[in-house]
Amino acid sequence: MPERIDDLQRDGLRIIQDPEGFCFGTDAVLLADFVRIPPGGRALDMCTGTGIIPILLSARTKASYIAGLELQKRAADMAARSVGLNGLTGRLEIYEGDVKEASRIFAGQHFDVITANPPYMKCHNGLVNPDDVKALSRHELTMDFDDLARESSALLTEGGKLFIVHRPQRLPEIITTLKSYDLEPKRLRMVHTYIHREANLFLMEARKGGGRELRTLPPLIVYSEKGVYSEEMDSIYAN
Amino acid sequence: MPERIDDLQRDGLRIIQDPEGFCFGTDAVLLADFVRIPPGGRALDMCTGTGIIPILLSARTKASYIAGLELQKRAADMAARSVGLNGLTGRLEIYEGDVKEASRIFAGQHFDVITANPPYMKCHNGLVNPDDVKALSRHELTMDFDDLARESSALLTEGGKLFIVHRPQRLPEIITTLKSYDLEPKRLRMVHTYIHREANLFLMEARKGGGRELRTLPPLIVYSEKGVYSEEMDSIYAN
Repeated sequence: MPERIDDLQRDGLRIIQDPEGFCFGTDAVLLADFVRIPPGGRALDMCTGTGIIPILLSARTKASYIAGLELQKRAADMAARSVGLNGLTGRLEIYEGDVKEASRIFAGQHFDVITANPPYMKCHNGLVNPDDVKALSRHELTMDFDDLARESSALLTEGGKLFIVHRPQRLPEIITTLKSYDLEPKRLRMVHTYIHREANLFLMEARKGGGRELRTLPPLIVYSEKGVYSEEMDSIYAN
Repeated sequence: MPERIDDLQRDGLRIIQDPEGFCFGTDAVLLADFVRIPPGGRALDMCTGTGIIPILLSARTKASYIAGLELQKRAADMAARSVGLNGLTGRLEIYEGDVKEASRIFAGQHFDVITANPPYMKCHNGLVNPDDVKALSRHELTMDFDDLARESSALLTEGGKLFIVHRPQRLPEIITTLKSYDLEPKRLRMVHTYIHREANLFLMEARKGGGRELRTLPPLIVYSEKGVYSEEMDSIYAN
């Protein structure tokens, strides 16, 4: 199967992807921009795919260690090779495994931050992309949001943060699920393609244990006009 | 105590208020603009105060009947007199009573729509405005959001809608509470004073029974610059 090495336009970082498989999108870039990791902190990226989020976070944060967990063997393999290609061995580490078993895979470890750009779609309607690689990235075939929240809560330190990007359609269910695992939503940011459109993504930070006040940040507007990124998007890509 | 009759700048409607008590604010106007009532439908406004929302909805919708429920005797009395002043007797009706007992007060009745601009603040910190009239409007002294959701769910028809305006800080708790009473959030709109500020209000429509997909509308921006309403706010006030 074909591979391609893409330049991430930051600190010389590169990523190995399969142009016929699932390449990272704007969602991952927005999430990496939204994440805060305390200097020296330990982070885990669930559903890491080809490792885009750990790689971006290696440059954007002073995290001491970032693990990435990916179920699909081929994506995990590409991610691990990208870690080596960028000279990040040791600081970044890729695990092949199931999010549902994350607390077993990382038994005895805790993380200050967990990040996830999980599959957005539920699997109840049968309309699943027949191409497995893409289907697993888009649909909750092997895990669902409840699994992600449960395993994240088990692996976070008290006061640790979960950062996610997801679809607004599922916001009520996601908030309820997070709260059921003692993950309290603390920051919310709606992402709108254009200012006069409905939101198509949201970014959320949830804190393990305590704290009840949610802050809703200014809306993130992707395009100021057709084909033209907003100033903020330009600055996110330049960061 | 002093009273004042204010012109609502629409269809000759007027409202009796106490300039030293609690006058209606932008929140009520935004909520009235957000509400949809099917033609001929029956509506109930909880925490109606001096009746601003029923009065605005009488002009903005084709509701056949709108009740308003208010705990404070003096506000309920002003609201009832405003109904008469506007020639709306029969179509609008004001009840003096407690939201906690709404399903008893309206026993045997059901509503297609319930609206509420409830007190925003919890009462746990003791920092309550010593002027009772304002304190009751701002703080959950005699009822809380759980009471409002429970009584609304009991009084709505299946598929009926609850429309609220509230503070984003409490969004997670409000979503969880609504869902616990079978009220599913269906439309959400964040209100930002300026586009680059955090949201300070949200508008929400929740549906009794079924339906899981939340739509997040474009952000509502109040001011385009200092002291200048956005075009949308101008059109809301002109409607």
